[in-house]
Amino acid sequence: MTVGRADVIAATDRISGRVRRTPIIEVEVGGHRVVLKLELLQHTGSFKPRGAFNRMIGAADIPDSGVIAASGGNHGVAVAFVAAELGIPAEIFIPEVSPAIKVEAIRRHGATARVGGALYGDALVASRARASETGALQVHAYDHELTVAGQGTMAFEVSEQVPDATEVLIAVGGGGLVSGAVAWFEDHLRVVAVEPTTSRAFAAALDAGAPVEVDVSGIASDSLGAASIGAVPWTVLDRHRPESLTVSDEAIAAAQHWLWQRMRLVVEPGGATASAAVLSGVHTPRPEGTTVIVVCGANTDPTSVTG
Amino acid sequence: MTVGRADVIAATDRISGRVRRTPIIEVEVGGHRVVLKLELLQHTGSFKPRGAFNRMIGAADIPDSGVIAASGGNHGVAVAFVAAELGIPAEIFIPEVSPAIKVEAIRRHGATARVGGALYGDALVASRARASETGALQVHAYDHELTVAGQGTMAFEVSEQVPDATEVLIAVGGGGLVSGAVAWFEDHLRVVAVEPTTSRAFAAALDAGAPVEVDVSGIASDSLGAASIGAVPWTVLDRHRPESLTVSDEAIAAAQHWLWQRMRLVVEPGGATASAAVLSGVHTPRPEGTTVIVVCGANTDPTSVTG
Repeated sequence: MTVGRADVIAATDRISGRVRRTPIIEVEVGGHRVVLKLELLQHTGSFKPRGAFNRMIGAADIPDSGVIAASGGNHGVAVAFVAAELGIPAEIFIPEVSPAIKVEAIRRHGATARVGGALYGDALVASRARASETGALQVHAYDHELTVAGQGTMAFEVSEQVPDATEVLIAVGGGGLVSGAVAWFEDHLRVVAVEPTTSRAFAAALDAGAPVEVDVSGIASDSLGAASIGAVPWTVLDRHRPESLTVSDEAIAAAQHWLWQRMRLVVEPGGATASAAVLSGVHTPRPEGTTVIVVCGANTDPTSVTG
Repeated sequence: MTVGRADVIAATDRISGRVRRTPIIEVEVGGHRVVLKLELLQHTGSFKPRGAFNRMIGAADIPDSGVIAASGGNHGVAVAFVAAELGIPAEIFIPEVSPAIKVEAIRRHGATARVGGALYGDALVASRARASETGALQVHAYDHELTVAGQGTMAFEVSEQVPDATEVLIAVGGGGLVSGAVAWFEDHLRVVAVEPTTSRAFAAALDAGAPVEVDVSGIASDSLGAASIGAVPWTVLDRHRPESLTVSDEAIAAAQHWLWQRMRLVVEPGGATASAAVLSGVHTPRPEGTTVIVVCGANTDPTSVTG
């Protein structure tokens, strides 16, 4: 199974009215006129509710025990929010490394938050053990067709909002957002996948010809630190391969600072990674058409962006 | 002299390409579907460059000594920015009470910043004395036809972006933004002027039938703390009187917190004042048509909104 345009259209219908249509703004970035897609203004401060809504509304059946997820990050916050909106119980297994702002948000949306070990992998194991006890529906952060199609609705909006877009820069962790976008855009425009040099799962998959595990670390690892590209995202990315770029942690921090100083946007490291590619000169926007940069997450301590 | 629709149209042409067309986003505020006009994403983090560009580009002649302004706030930052964009020297007289984030921004844009006494009034006196020495063009924060017409371009965009708007809520200090909006909208929709109870210059002018001086204090006084409505804004506001509302400092602080928690927007007190009217229940959006809330300023220490 994979994900295609029809799935993205179905997702757009399914989650209509549930997610915000996030705005765009035309700005000068690194001397180039570009359009920022302000997906950080989505509910919960990241794009993740798109996939979570499509996954949960699209599920054939949700058990009485509800949903379960492993994430101390934006996915966990989104599952907690979407479950509350749909009146479904949610249990979220949080690794100890999670930033306070995200753990607080998970609790605020009424989900049961459980500390599930030191790292994401531990929390995932704990969540699976718990799901086998309770029968809850496991909602993966990116490795499901409905989740990928849901994230693709962001790209659907870009097509409506920026009809002359010729390239779209998107940050990559496990590949959910970028594969959803590629499922929608296919080869109609250039998708540029931007990763931190400290967590280059997509670049490594391209090198190997298939998803492989990489070491992850660095400033954006709480949102982009997947150890490998998901199997479902890969089915899409292997069909229409985006360009792959990496940016340094320093370039990401500088982009966060720029986005605050010049745009008054608080952007988390993963959310600033695509912008960093243009600001640092790693990517030069094409002269023809319009370059779109997706700013996909806000959830960071605001003091971290003002320095 | 006053300001009318033709002046706003002329301003739109004059500053086209210089200011950002700020985005809108449809959200639920206090249980009502409304549209936020995200004018805090304007250059320098407030609407002020609209008026400053129109004033300076529209001036018959700018002396070699450039422009001068009194403001330790958003107007000062905007004049510094616009002067730099136009290659004009700028001297800004800053009262000691100004927030650090704004003083830093004035300096960063390359203007000469001078501390001009304890309060705004002192800085204004100092700036006038200096202008009489240098011959620089004085750029007032709100009391000039070109400035008011420039601020009205925000409202022009709202008409294009939200064709079914039936009411627009706008925060009021000296009256520049609200009178620009009223000059554009005339009686075609309801403009609601929102002030802090701690700086109610417009409410007092309505009571007295003309601008009068009021005491100002409180959380938003660095942006909305004008002692009276300007003479030029009053010529417009007296012709098409907006509805007047006041909100408490507590309601403004709660709105700032809401805008961060629910929208991930860092909004200064003055920028959150119009939203506070709906969030606190002082104003109930009309059921017919669309209510627009202008979020007009971002320039605050981000830690102040997260508590």
